[in-house]
Amino acid sequence: MESVKIIEIKKSVFSANEMDANELRKELKEKGVFLLNLMSSPGAGKTTTLIKLINELKKDLKIKVMEADIDSDVDAIKIKDATGVESIQLHTGGMCHLDAEMTKQGIDGLKDFDVDLVILENVGNLVCPAEFDTGACMNMTILSVPEGDDKPLKYPLMYQVCNLVVINKIDTLSVFDFDMDKVKENIHMRNPNAEIIPISAKTGEGIDKLANFLKSEISKWRKM
Amino acid sequence: MESVKIIEIKKSVFSANEMDANELRKELKEKGVFLLNLMSSPGAGKTTTLIKLINELKKDLKIKVMEADIDSDVDAIKIKDATGVESIQLHTGGMCHLDAEMTKQGIDGLKDFDVDLVILENVGNLVCPAEFDTGACMNMTILSVPEGDDKPLKYPLMYQVCNLVVINKIDTLSVFDFDMDKVKENIHMRNPNAEIIPISAKTGEGIDKLANFLKSEISKWRKM
Repeated sequence: MESVKIIEIKKSVFSANEMDANELRKELKEKGVFLLNLMSSPGAGKTTTLIKLINELKKDLKIKVMEADIDSDVDAIKIKDATGVESIQLHTGGMCHLDAEMTKQGIDGLKDFDVDLVILENVGNLVCPAEFDTGACMNMTILSVPEGDDKPLKYPLMYQVCNLVVINKIDTLSVFDFDMDKVKENIHMRNPNAEIIPISAKTGEGIDKLANFLKSEISKWRKM
Repeated sequence: MESVKIIEIKKSVFSANEMDANELRKELKEKGVFLLNLMSSPGAGKTTTLIKLINELKKDLKIKVMEADIDSDVDAIKIKDATGVESIQLHTGGMCHLDAEMTKQGIDGLKDFDVDLVILENVGNLVCPAEFDTGACMNMTILSVPEGDDKPLKYPLMYQVCNLVVINKIDTLSVFDFDMDKVKENIHMRNPNAEIIPISAKTGEGIDKLANFLKSEISKWRKM
C-alpha cells in the first residue's frame, strides 16, 4: 500500500465557526470546488461507499478526498489505492468532529485546486460533527441497515443538517428488522427536503443513482 | 407502552470531572451499588443486549437502568416494558456524552438505592463518552459485526478504557467480512486485559456467558 499525506489538525478554540464556514464556502465557490461533507456512525460504510462512488464519478469529475480520523491512516490509503485519486489524512488529535477552520487546514494541504469535488470524510460520530458547519456545500450522511430505522429519532440534528441521506447495506435487509418506509418517514420528520438513496456499497446497487444525484447537484451549484 | 421518568441533565462546565467521578464511585461503594457504564456506536445493539442481559440477571440481582439520549425516551420505555426493572431516561440536551456530575444527577433521580446493579446506557458515540469518567465501576463497550473489525484501530481510547468488550450480532457473521481473530488482536493491542465476549442479542447466544462474567465481577468488587 502507498503512503498518504497526513496533516495533524490544530484546533483554534476561539474561532467563530459560522463566519469561518461562510468564508470557506465563498472561497471554494470562487475556485469552483464543491465540498461534500460526509458523516455517519462508525462502521456505516463511509469509506467503502466513497470508493464505489469515486470510481463511478471520476470519469466526469476531478476528485480529491480528505479523511478525518482520530488516529490511523487506513482509510486514506484505502481510498488512494482503490481509486487513484489524491487522498490526504487529517488527524484530529482526539477531536470528535471537524470545524470550518480545521477543514480549511485540510483544503490548504491539498496539492492543487485543479479539482471539481472535494469529499471530506468526517469523524465517525452521529453527534458532534452535526453541530459544526465545515463550510461544505452539501452535508451527506449514511445510515446503514444494521444500525436500525430509529436513528433519526435519536440523533435529530444529524438528519436536520443533511440534505442527502444514503441508506447503505441494503443487501442485508433480510437479516435485520429494518423498515424502509418507516426510516423514510423518520428522516423526513427531521428534514422534509432530504433526498434518500438506498444503496449497497458492497454489491454496487444504487451507486449510479447516487452518482447522478451528486452530478446534478454540482451542476446546479455551478449555475448559482 | 408505559411512560418513564425523564431527567433533563444540566451540564456543569467547570466541574473537575475526575474528582467528581472518584467521589461518586466511593459513594456507590458505600451503598453497595455497582455502576456499569455501557458505551458503543449508534445501532450496535446496546438496548437489545441490555434487555436480554437484565432478563438473565434479574433473578440474582436487583437492577435499575439509566438511559442517556440526546432526545426521545424510546429506549427507557423499551427496557421497562421488556424487563420490568426501573428505567429512567436522561436527556443530555444535545450533549454527546455523560460526565460524572451528570451521571450523579441520574443516580440521585432513582427512586431508591435498594439495588445491586445500575446500568448506564451512555450516548451512542465511540469518541466523546470514552473521554469522561462517569464514576462507573466498570466500562463496557459493544462492537457489532456489521461495524467491522477495524474499530479499535480508529477509536483507540474507547477500547483503552473498557475492560469488557462484547462483540454483538455474531448471527450475521456469514454476511459480513469480519475476522474474529483480527478483532481480538486489535482490541488487545489497545487493552491487553480486556475480556471479550461474542454474543447475539437477537438469538440470545452468549448472553449466559456475559451474565456470568458480570456476576463474578460484581462479587469480586463487593469483596474489595
